[in-house]
Amino acid sequence: MNKTELVHPVEGIRLAAAYAGIKNGVDESSAEGLLDVVLIEICEGASVAAVYTRNVFCAAPVLVAREHIESVTPRYLLINSGNANAGTGTAGLADAVACCEAVADAGTCSRREVLPFSTGVIGEPLPASRITSVIPDLLSQLDQSAWAEAAQGIMTTDTYSKISSQQFELDGERVTVTGIAKGSGMIRPDMATMLAYVATDAAVDEDVLQACLRDAMAASFNCITVDGDTSTNDACVLMATGRAHAAKITSTQGDTYHKLLIVVRAVCESLAQSIIHDGEGATKFITIEVVGGQDESECREVAYTVAQSPLVKTAFFASDPNWGRILAAVGCADIENLDVTGVSINLGDVCIVRAGERAADYTEELGQAVMQRNEIVVQISLGRGDAAAHVWTCDLSYDYVKINAEYRT
Amino acid sequence: MNKTELVHPVEGIRLAAAYAGIKNGVDESSAEGLLDVVLIEICEGASVAAVYTRNVFCAAPVLVAREHIESVTPRYLLINSGNANAGTGTAGLADAVACCEAVADAGTCSRREVLPFSTGVIGEPLPASRITSVIPDLLSQLDQSAWAEAAQGIMTTDTYSKISSQQFELDGERVTVTGIAKGSGMIRPDMATMLAYVATDAAVDEDVLQACLRDAMAASFNCITVDGDTSTNDACVLMATGRAHAAKITSTQGDTYHKLLIVVRAVCESLAQSIIHDGEGATKFITIEVVGGQDESECREVAYTVAQSPLVKTAFFASDPNWGRILAAVGCADIENLDVTGVSINLGDVCIVRAGERAADYTEELGQAVMQRNEIVVQISLGRGDAAAHVWTCDLSYDYVKINAEYRT
Repeated sequence: MNKTELVHPVEGIRLAAAYAGIKNGVDESSAEGLLDVVLIEICEGASVAAVYTRNVFCAAPVLVAREHIESVTPRYLLINSGNANAGTGTAGLADAVACCEAVADAGTCSRREVLPFSTGVIGEPLPASRITSVIPDLLSQLDQSAWAEAAQGIMTTDTYSKISSQQFELDGERVTVTGIAKGSGMIRPDMATMLAYVATDAAVDEDVLQACLRDAMAASFNCITVDGDTSTNDACVLMATGRAHAAKITSTQGDTYHKLLIVVRAVCESLAQSIIHDGEGATKFITIEVVGGQDESECREVAYTVAQSPLVKTAFFASDPNWGRILAAVGCADIENLDVTGVSINLGDVCIVRAGERAADYTEELGQAVMQRNEIVVQISLGRGDAAAHVWTCDLSYDYVKINAEYRT
Repeated sequence: MNKTELVHPVEGIRLAAAYAGIKNGVDESSAEGLLDVVLIEICEGASVAAVYTRNVFCAAPVLVAREHIESVTPRYLLINSGNANAGTGTAGLADAVACCEAVADAGTCSRREVLPFSTGVIGEPLPASRITSVIPDLLSQLDQSAWAEAAQGIMTTDTYSKISSQQFELDGERVTVTGIAKGSGMIRPDMATMLAYVATDAAVDEDVLQACLRDAMAASFNCITVDGDTSTNDACVLMATGRAHAAKITSTQGDTYHKLLIVVRAVCESLAQSIIHDGEGATKFITIEVVGGQDESECREVAYTVAQSPLVKTAFFASDPNWGRILAAVGCADIENLDVTGVSINLGDVCIVRAGERAADYTEELGQAVMQRNEIVVQISLGRGDAAAHVWTCDLSYDYVKINAEYRT
């Protein structure tokens, strides 16, 4: 989060975070355990939209949440960090349901009105009783302004919490959009667990809200993932409480929908970029921008192929303008009949490849100067159409290996 | 190379290696520069088969070699390491042709009878005059037993040279198969440059030899690559001099073809495994074996997805039995309608996942014991057919990052 950014509460949303001993480590400022269970309460009458992982080994909470949201609009989101409750079979399903039941019993709603989420190590049994034991405390501490605590409570290997908040006017009324997210190993984000919870006090029909979430994700969280959302636990939830005074948005065609989408998308983009900035071991923020493609899909294929190449990533880490690796990665992308003589590549404002070969005016010094920066844009022009796409990624450093080698130690 | 393995010369093949100052560094044993240009002479009447990269940005020498071999059977292979002559446009093509011409002029053959190969940094102009200046020396030093020097001369980031040699009987006559190879960053081998040169003194029709190369590669070099051979420079050449006394092999149906294929494949497998053992920063040799698939293609997709996951690779480096990462990688593979309850995973002889969830009898200690080994087999059973495939890979260590970050410094 941009530290100067204000976090605006969202009328109709209350949050609380607690320490249940699921996540290892201690908060150095308070010498207490790290927050690892979060409860989000959604007011009655709200609309809720959700998108989940496409990994076939999706985690138990994903299976439960998918089923619950089909029958009724949720009133509570229960999230734990430190344990993904994935690969845990029927016992994991029972644990996820038990956690929902504990919230339902104490919060006087039905079990199906609670959506469970988990993030952390895969394949370990969920310590459900530790979660259920803190639920009474969580319910009693629910607070409109506890967004920062909630953002901390969902963190795993994140080194800082991720919040974004914006306000805008709709029908002359002030409307708020506030969200939190957590990231993970960002070199292969399809393996990562990404969770994001975004709320607005706008009033929005549930199917329109689902479209808004889909449209916002396409330009944000899906630009940092490889092939959609394919970890075992990925989830993104968009809530609209309807407590603002603007009229209800009932169609994706109108002006009000687009105004809302712009702000929801901006909040999601900010969260997605925070995830990349905090990518495991990341020292650089890299935008791979592909233009001149025949369609968006081939632009994305090229962008992902470059963004995922360990050789490209280690060159960025070393600030080495080894642009041949970018060229080789473009050549590896799975697209049809690419004419290499139409391809140009810019590193920042320096043209490194023109018409498929090293630009005549390129010098190592020019490339080096761009590579020293912390934020680098690589623009690849395929020279065969008008479509474009971008992907945000980071470099591959020693610390990526360190973090992932020592994750469970 | 297995150090106790004998290298058998191949009648009709002579080799030489020289220092031309293209590759940085010094041979510590002799204080001389590293060998970086290799010439292989093929006797008249031989058959030659070759397979090249599918990367659309294929290097200049690949374009030239492909064109040359179409019109005539080659007499010389000229290989330099230290510079890939890729992304070098028309100047690169002219350089590759000039090198061939220098061999042709001095060796009294046509330019088209020379195939050029380059490996090393992409995008730098090839110092062709340094190569051409050593060609007279190379021609005068050609020797049947210089396989070891040739293997050294083609190395780039390899830490040791790779040779394999076997003899067998065909029609009661002794036949030899000897080969050399070089590897590269093996975590994303589609980005790597792999070169391999294998020769036999068997007599083989050229189209049969091409089939033999294709069949041998499918079980060897193609089991260590992601999607075929997609670096800018990958090439594999199989030569048959016909100098042994066995009858000429003119069909892929006969018994003699299969005898030859078995040995060529064994030599290629040995070279391919050496490349993985010497993978950049590799500390472990990992076999990903997928069984029970509907077809080989889906088994390969699963094997590659697991073998390429940085999270799986770092867990292997850390000897951490974080099997959840293997499970998540299987779930990410792009295959249709996988029923997770049919999936089982073994780590060595330890069952870690049974029917899609953690095996009841699995303990961390059992997994840990397997993870400590230097050679690990992961067997993944999809439980929905009889097809199988395997991929050889290595772990992702600090040294991978170090080698690739410092490659050009």
